Order: sequence, then structure tokens, then C-alpha cells
Amino acid sequence: MNIGIDMMGGDFAPRAVVLGVSLVSHELPADVHLTLIGDENAVKEIFVSEGIDYSKYRFVHTTEVIEMGEQPSKAFTKKPNSSIARGFSLLKTGEIDGFTSAGNTGAMLAGAMFTVKPIPGILRPSIPVVLPRFNYPKPFVLLDVGLNPDAKPEVLYQYGILGKVFAQKMLQILDPKVALLNIGSEPEKGNIVAKATYDLMKNSQDFSFIGNFEGYDLFDNPEADVIVCDGFVGNIIIKLTESIFSISGKCGIQNNFFDQFNYEVYGGTPILGINTTVFIGHGVSSPLAIKNTIQHTCDMVNAHLPETFNEIFK
Amino acid sequence: MNIGIDMMGGDFAPRAVVLGVSLVSHELPADVHLTLIGDENAVKEIFVSEGIDYSKYRFVHTTEVIEMGEQPSKAFTKKPNSSIARGFSLLKTGEIDGFTSAGNTGAMLAGAMFTVKPIPGILRPSIPVVLPRFNYPKPFVLLDVGLNPDAKPEVLYQYGILGKVFAQKMLQILDPKVALLNIGSEPEKGNIVAKATYDLMKNSQDFSFIGNFEGYDLFDNPEADVIVCDGFVGNIIIKLTESIFSISGKCGIQNNFFDQFNYEVYGGTPILGINTTVFIGHGVSSPLAIKNTIQHTCDMVNAHLPETFNEIFK
Repeated sequence: MNIGIDMMGGDFAPRAVVLGVSLVSHELPADVHLTLIGDENAVKEIFVSEGIDYSKYRFVHTTEVIEMGEQPSKAFTKKPNSSIARGFSLLKTGEIDGFTSAGNTGAMLAGAMFTVKPIPGILRPSIPVVLPRFNYPKPFVLLDVGLNPDAKPEVLYQYGILGKVFAQKMLQILDPKVALLNIGSEPEKGNIVAKATYDLMKNSQDFSFIGNFEGYDLFDNPEADVIVCDGFVGNIIIKLTESIFSISGKCGIQNNFFDQFNYEVYGGTPILGINTTVFIGHGVSSPLAIKNTIQHTCDMVNAHLPETFNEIFK
Repeated sequence: MNIGIDMMGGDFAPRAVVLGVSLVSHELPADVHLTLIGDENAVKEIFVSEGIDYSKYRFVHTTEVIEMGEQPSKAFTKKPNSSIARGFSLLKTGEIDGFTSAGNTGAMLAGAMFTVKPIPGILRPSIPVVLPRFNYPKPFVLLDVGLNPDAKPEVLYQYGILGKVFAQKMLQILDPKVALLNIGSEPEKGNIVAKATYDLMKNSQDFSFIGNFEGYDLFDNPEADVIVCDGFVGNIIIKLTESIFSISGKCGIQNNFFDQFNYEVYGGTPILGINTTVFIGHGVSSPLAIKNTIQHTCDMVNAHLPETFNEIFK
């Protein structure tokens, strides 16, 4: 297996990425090879200054960087020799099996949509996060957390399938229960989209639907393994939990539950529903977060999600 | 001033309401009179069993109760002698100046819409909550938290005005800054409704608009005093914060910031944009929460919000 890593992506790149690569290298199986994509000299200099041997990595030299503030799809087209654009070229030619970057999220999405392409039958890909539940060992999957802020009922229905497969393959939950995030437990509650989605989900043969979940169910109700919402609501929730973690830290609170709101635990989010493995790291990624995104990218490649989705949606 | 209280409303009524009334009575100014609406004998029995003197209260006897699970507007029409329906009759005839209930929220809203009516010019009334900010003394107003899960841009724009006036009159913030809850700081970010709302708000002469707020800004960015969202997002957020408070309590965390997520602090939410003062208590209201809702109902009556709104929207 070969994983491509954008060495130039993230607020603290390339140093944080070099350190993350070094951290994860000790833990990866021997058959996992890392391809480091970025400014080769700059990256090697950091390896040297950190006293880390880089001889086992393959380097792909790039001369451009898509900055965090750049207009994503334009930047992707205009900078073919950027680390993100090269990563997607390598994915397309099969030279790497998975690609991860903590760089410009929009450019990563543009690459996923236009270079890799969604799986036929999937209306819209989605980005999920794995979140903890209070007093319950298994985490749950929340999706979408930002890819589709205007998701239609049919799209949300498919997110039930994407989430179910992700929970099965990545969290080892045999028969994941799917809930719809809503503002009341009754079927008639919610906005227009939520009501229509409930109607689609209620008799689903594609997943086990257990009904509506409310805001207080999210972290404190172990009944659902997958919670579906649109990317607008999901993005606000995920950023809110990051803020709770940050405030909790500033207050000096040490608590196992709140500590799991730390973005570093998962490090980012994969793109579900495309024909390969792409993992988007958090912009402020630390070496630990980078390490975890690389580990999760390997796990995703091993889980063969695109094959499963192609089978389901064919 | 005369405040009407639904003695039958809430999961722990009438006992919790009797105790809440008793708690608040010691703190109210002499010119505030309380009208207790409910099953007079049942309520008086509790006063007696608690050893509390009830001679200073006016009683309005009712024979029906709208239960928590009943279909709101039907129940409101079919039970004219329920405590909620009588409360609204008393409001309409001017026998009371404000009304509060921890009972069936839908019936309270039905009463507000059909008996009291929205202020002309206000497209949709709203329910706000007052929430704490980390390391900053002033709280902020989040609205809407559930009245309009499908709010249009024009409605959200007006929420900016409703929230501004509420922050001025109830939180003593002279020039409240208004933000739009969104999934990115840039104007072009968000779902269709958020983008259109941003366009309406950006040159507002009606309030000081400071731009988009993201999920992590909510509790950790003191720049905005009013944060506008639709009732779907707002309801999920408010229930999520209640859950964070509950989990924090179960973990034995004692923290001034998280403690303010306790619904008892505010006790419920007023309905903004109608022609009188109506305050909806939380269904699980404790005596402390009831006490606070009665106190806030008095404060609202004193603040003369409907007069201000009539002036602005005339």
C-alpha cells in the first residue's frame, strides 16, 4: 500500500507534517509505503534538522502551494504542480492508494470531485466525523459535517447508507442504527427537509432507521451509531464541540469524555462516496493529528469502502 | 402589574409551580401581583401542605389541563377552560400583563399566535435564549431556538432587529452587535438561506451587523451580542448545550461557565414579536426555574418590548 502525504498542507506545514510522518512511521506495517509530496529540499532540510532518517520515503517534488485562503477550484486548475494537484494525479494513475492533506479543504474537495469523481449512483459525497458518547464505549458517526450545506432529502437518505457502511467497516459495528438529527422525536417534527427525509427513511430496507434524534441525544444516547444531518448543521455542531474542548482545556478540566472532542484524536475527515481514499486533515493540524490522519488513511484503504459503495449503488 | 401563572404547566406541576411562586414572592416589588391559574383546590392544598400562606394571591379556577403530548392547536380550541387557554383570555382582556407557563409549548405558541397575535409588520415571532460566553461577563442572545425551523432570509433579517431590541432592553447592551450563524466567515459561505441573509444584513441600517459567526465563535467570541439562526439549528444547539451541562454534572465537573448552561438560570424563553408578554417555561421546570421564569416575565413587562416593536415596524 502506498499513501501520499501533502507535506505543504496545514498551518504548521511542512514541519508539523514531517514530525507527524516520523511519528506514524514506527507504527505502520512494513507493507505501507509513504510518498511525501511537496518542496523536496525544504522537507528534507527539516528531516535533517530534526535528525530523522528520510531514506525510506519516496519524494515527489512540487514547486507550487495552494494557500489556505485561495479560491479552491481556480487554484486547483491554475497550480498543476502544487502538492494537492500532484497528490490527485498520483491517485488517478494509481501510484498511490490514498491521499491525505491538511491543506486547503476546498481544493481537496475540488480534487475529489473533478479528478477522482463520485461513485456512480451516489448523489453527493459526504464528510463524516467520529465523535464520542458519554458513558458508552463505542463512538458514533455524524455526517455530513460540511460538504453539503443544502442537502436534499434524497441526499440525506443516502448519507444513512454511507454512514452505515463507514460504521461497519471502520468502527466494527455489525448492524449500525441510523438516526436523523431533528428538533423533536415525533415524525411530524422538523423543517421541511427533515420531515421529507423522515418519510424516506422510515421504511428503509438499506439501513436500520430508529427515528429522530434531538440535540441532547447526540452525545448522551447510545441508541444510534450513525446520525444524519445536512452539512450546515453538522459543521456548526463539530465546530461547537471543538470549542467546548478548547474552553474545557482553558478551564483546566481534565475529563475523558470532553478530551475526546479534541480534533487531534481523529485528525480530520475522509471524503465518503468517491472512487478512492482521500482524507482531509484539520487546518491547524499538529504532528499528532497528522500522525492520526495518516493512520486513518491506511485504515480506510484497507477497508475498501469504494468497492462496497460501487456494489451497493450499482 | 399583574402576572398570570399556569399552575398546571410542566412535568412537576402543580407542586413545583407552587414552590416557585413561593420562592419568587419574597423578591418581587410590592406592585407586582400574581394570578394563579389552575385547579384552585388542588393548588391550595399544596400551599397548605407546604405551610405557605396563599392569601395574597388571586386565584382563577380552571377545570381542564392541556397535557404535554396533546396536539397543541386542537387542544387549545377544545379546552377553553384549561389553564393555558384561560391565561390567554386574561391576557386579551388585560386582566394580566404577562403570562408564563411550563406546559405544552405548542399550545402556548398557538395561544400567542391566535389569541394575542403577532405585531403587524413582524413576519414571524421568535423565541430567543440567553447564553453565557466564556471569560466574558455579558451573555449573548441566540435566536430563533425553535419557533421557525424553516425561516426565510427576510425572517432571519427581522430576527436581527428582535434580538437587538431584546439585548438592549433586557441585557442593557447599548449598541448590540449582530452576527449570522454560518459555516464560514466569508460572505459567500453557507447554505442558500444563509448566503441570502448575509446579503440582506450586510448593509443593514436597522442593526450593527458584524458578519458570520461559526460554531466555535458561539461561546468563545465576545464580538457579537446577538447571534441569528433558524429555529432548526438553534433548537439543536440549545438542546446540545443542555446535554453538555447534564454530562458535565454527571462527571462531577464544577465550573462557572458550564454551570450557566443550566436551563434553570433562565428557565425558559419569551415569545418575541407578539403584542404582549408571554414566557414559555421548560417542561421539566424545577421550583428554581419557575421562580426565574416569573422574574423574567416581570422584567419583560417592565421593558415594554411590544411598544418598541410596534414603533419600529409601524
